Amino acid sequence: MRSRITTIFRQKPKASLFTIGLTSSLAAGYLFNKYRPVVYADTTKTSFVIGERKPSLPTYSMTEVAKHTTKENGYWLAYKDGVYDISAFVENHPGGKQILKTAGKALEACWKIFTIHQIDHVYEILEEYRIGNLPPGEREANAKAQEDVVDLFQYDPERINATENFFIRSEKPFNAETKPTVLVSSFLTPIEKFYVRNHMHVPFVNINEFKLEIGDGTSAYTLSYDDLKDKYQSHTVTSALQCAGNRRAAMNNDAQGSVQGTPWYVGAIGNARWTGVKLRDVLESFGLLNEGRHVQFVGLDCDTSQRCYGASIPMEKALSDDVLIAYEMNDETLTSDHGYPLRIVVPGTVGARSVKWVNRIIVSNEESDSHWQKADYKVLPPSIKQPQQVDYDRVPAIQESNVQSAICYPASTEDGNKVKILSVKPTGEDTKNQTLSIKGYAVGGGGRQVQNVQISLDHGKTWLQADLEQLAQPYMRAWAWTLWSTHIPLKDLPSEPFDIVCRAMDIHSNSQPDSPLGIWNVRGVMNNSWHKITLKIDASFSKKVTN
Amino acid sequence: MRSRITTIFRQKPKASLFTIGLTSSLAAGYLFNKYRPVVYADTTKTSFVIGERKPSLPTYSMTEVAKHTTKENGYWLAYKDGVYDISAFVENHPGGKQILKTAGKALEACWKIFTIHQIDHVYEILEEYRIGNLPPGEREANAKAQEDVVDLFQYDPERINATENFFIRSEKPFNAETKPTVLVSSFLTPIEKFYVRNHMHVPFVNINEFKLEIGDGTSAYTLSYDDLKDKYQSHTVTSALQCAGNRRAAMNNDAQGSVQGTPWYVGAIGNARWTGVKLRDVLESFGLLNEGRHVQFVGLDCDTSQRCYGASIPMEKALSDDVLIAYEMNDETLTSDHGYPLRIVVPGTVGARSVKWVNRIIVSNEESDSHWQKADYKVLPPSIKQPQQVDYDRVPAIQESNVQSAICYPASTEDGNKVKILSVKPTGEDTKNQTLSIKGYAVGGGGRQVQNVQISLDHGKTWLQADLEQLAQPYMRAWAWTLWSTHIPLKDLPSEPFDIVCRAMDIHSNSQPDSPLGIWNVRGVMNNSWHKITLKIDASFSKKVTN
Repeated sequence: MRSRITTIFRQKPKASLFTIGLTSSLAAGYLFNKYRPVVYADTTKTSFVIGERKPSLPTYSMTEVAKHTTKENGYWLAYKDGVYDISAFVENHPGGKQILKTAGKALEACWKIFTIHQIDHVYEILEEYRIGNLPPGEREANAKAQEDVVDLFQYDPERINATENFFIRSEKPFNAETKPTVLVSSFLTPIEKFYVRNHMHVPFVNINEFKLEIGDGTSAYTLSYDDLKDKYQSHTVTSALQCAGNRRAAMNNDAQGSVQGTPWYVGAIGNARWTGVKLRDVLESFGLLNEGRHVQFVGLDCDTSQRCYGASIPMEKALSDDVLIAYEMNDETLTSDHGYPLRIVVPGTVGARSVKWVNRIIVSNEESDSHWQKADYKVLPPSIKQPQQVDYDRVPAIQESNVQSAICYPASTEDGNKVKILSVKPTGEDTKNQTLSIKGYAVGGGGRQVQNVQISLDHGKTWLQADLEQLAQPYMRAWAWTLWSTHIPLKDLPSEPFDIVCRAMDIHSNSQPDSPLGIWNVRGVMNNSWHKITLKIDASFSKKVTN
Repeated sequence: MRSRITTIFRQKPKASLFTIGLTSSLAAGYLFNKYRPVVYADTTKTSFVIGERKPSLPTYSMTEVAKHTTKENGYWLAYKDGVYDISAFVENHPGGKQILKTAGKALEACWKIFTIHQIDHVYEILEEYRIGNLPPGEREANAKAQEDVVDLFQYDPERINATENFFIRSEKPFNAETKPTVLVSSFLTPIEKFYVRNHMHVPFVNINEFKLEIGDGTSAYTLSYDDLKDKYQSHTVTSALQCAGNRRAAMNNDAQGSVQGTPWYVGAIGNARWTGVKLRDVLESFGLLNEGRHVQFVGLDCDTSQRCYGASIPMEKALSDDVLIAYEMNDETLTSDHGYPLRIVVPGTVGARSVKWVNRIIVSNEESDSHWQKADYKVLPPSIKQPQQVDYDRVPAIQESNVQSAICYPASTEDGNKVKILSVKPTGEDTKNQTLSIKGYAVGGGGRQVQNVQISLDHGKTWLQADLEQLAQPYMRAWAWTLWSTHIPLKDLPSEPFDIVCRAMDIHSNSQPDSPLGIWNVRGVMNNSWHKITLKIDASFSKKVTN
């Protein structure tokens, strides 16, 4: 089983002129055009015009722009006819230092791939840094050059019925959350309905060449896909996975301002059966158990300079029973969007640590030095209004999830972020029973089972206890989510619009804050404030009830 | 080390005519007279008159009363001239079925010992159940009989300077919380200033006869005090202990009503160095590791029918490194109020499981069947307004603490529950620096280190980050509390009364709810809502600042 290697297998992306490892986030509302008419009428408008010639500004050639690629000379770039000095913005880029790769170049090639940037909010920021114009003709030359750019995302899968199951938050990289009514329609989330949170492109994998490397940073062993499946005991865990940014959009508030990142509603979560081998067993087989304080994971989703997605977990967690190197999801081979051939599954921990397309595992005394461990996915203090104000090393990387719940039914087919008042016309059993069914999910972090879910129609003064659907799970290993439901007699509901809130409590009395006020952070992560929706019972129906 | 025993050593309390194991709680405001003038002017008034003769009611003799001691015949008792049928109240008694021991008898003897009942709230409840009068002369006979009652509390220690360090919530049993300014005056809470939460009397212990019994419920081994200290490796843990009811008083609110139990302010918490042996090592030495799902602890504080204080923890917790059978606190032999000769210390878990005066440890598949495990110390759902409405078995026993913080300085020397607006006159460094110092504590549950503490002067809209004083502790073993402080320029403070709130967040993003609304429970446990105090800067001082 052990074989020392000197060269490390690594997926070679096809040549591309220009790539940037995309970060976890950017300001709200970026979407691929394809989906615009269906789901996102508002956020994809790019009415702000940038890069047009401004005769009052000086002229700089691309040759001049290309000289500005260092801290000393400043970081310049071009877009359309505009020249920009982004030196002052570099530290503030939500995607970290990836932005430096655009220095000295025309931005078109990058944004062709990372369409996530093509929104007004980003346009406005860029235009603030405008310093000049390109000479006539250079804009056209840049436009022609970008036609040769190879699409890094060429191996992303076709996503069937995506708009039916998902609100798509960005196409490249693909970020899509499950619609709320889909979430609560089954205890296990079907693979094709499970939220997708990609940080870069989906990598191409030749399974015959694929090797998983396990080492301590100086030397390493490898396992083929078949080795891993054949030589270790398989283990299955039912676990929810939730993005640290789930419910981010609800963290925006008038008192404290907007947060930065993909504006997830309640659907960046799913619950699945994961089958694989125990990380612990694999580490033990190579004598690496407890040989370092952290276990780092590196994915195959890398940019051309081999900057790959990565994350780490503390060794204490890696030693636990249920951290998997998984190859199956809901008893089927992993799909490419969910990490084929192998992904890490860290139950009870935010999704960012469950690295997909994992091909390197490194036991170390250090955390992963990836951007997503060291800077992104941290709960910055509420006083920090711009990420560059913080010394990231003083803020710990997020690991366990906190206790969470959300109302998923009734829900609109429209993006929940945009629905102010949801008009409801009860149907089916509800009509017959003269009730309104309320359904949702709840989940505890770190294996803490959900103890109860409470629903309030009067902003928390009185509460109704929901019925829970839960797996029997061992103490402190309650990784699966809880589905909940309650049925309120229609006669108890007002005819005017009214709010419903839900909150869960875990078995150790951790509960959800009433509002985002106490947990607001500029990156909008770990929002577990009470989920609130506003409903209005359809007038014709209300009338029927009272008659 | 192993010696099978057939008879079990047990502390024999001195004879007493009448004893009741007291429960963890009762309605607010009971105090021993001694302390009344100093701290509790309001709550100890017993203006409500009960037990006086009511000529309109029938007469029942003590002989008749004595016949009503069963569910079928009802539960009757007498107090002064009154006869009461408490059948309908039995299920609702916060102390559980202990109340049945009063059936058929005169209540004076019980209440002489358990003075905790001598408050208006209890008087009012009792008088609701009035059904008759005793014949002339029987009241006097009952009064004479109670003179012979031996005081179970005779071995309670003398408590030097108690009123200086504590707000005393009840004398028998002794329940006293540390004053807030005392709490933050040292990282380790001195023994004599550490809160005391006794459920019954302090037991008498003859150390030469004392044996710790360890078994599985059918057979048992014993260890003497010296055996335990000599034969196992000692282990020291710095850990906070906090009563599950800490901050109970702040759970009362106009919208949801009052909670039942000792009305702790913020001082039912302390932080100490505990030295003892690992529970795990002792269980292992007797082959009892993992032999059951729970580890039960029984204390020597028993009533005359051998109903003793008890609790249990899950085996998973017992296996961890830091659960102790402790014999020292802050490097000194345990005092009688803190469990001499031995107590359990379960770091990260509510104080109720750290059983004092422990003399039996039982590995079992069942939880402790004590009242304090099975009924008390549970977070009942918010819809439950009276404890008898709930099936206790459906609610898990509290184990880990949740994340908590409180403001301890500035604070009044008066009971914090009674201070509506605290007038503050800065002194010392604050005068010199023109600042107002704010200090407090924070603690995470289950070993989760406190990540940050935030202070708000505008009800959560903006926050100031406090400086933290913390121990370096291993991942997920952060048992000690955090002390925090911040210094606000006086010029930033309004001249009118203003609120300060604090909230902590642990490393896994568990935070505190904004208000008690979402966590309200009738027993008032696990209140970790934002702590708020209202301050007014002394006018003369404000003037000095502005000049």
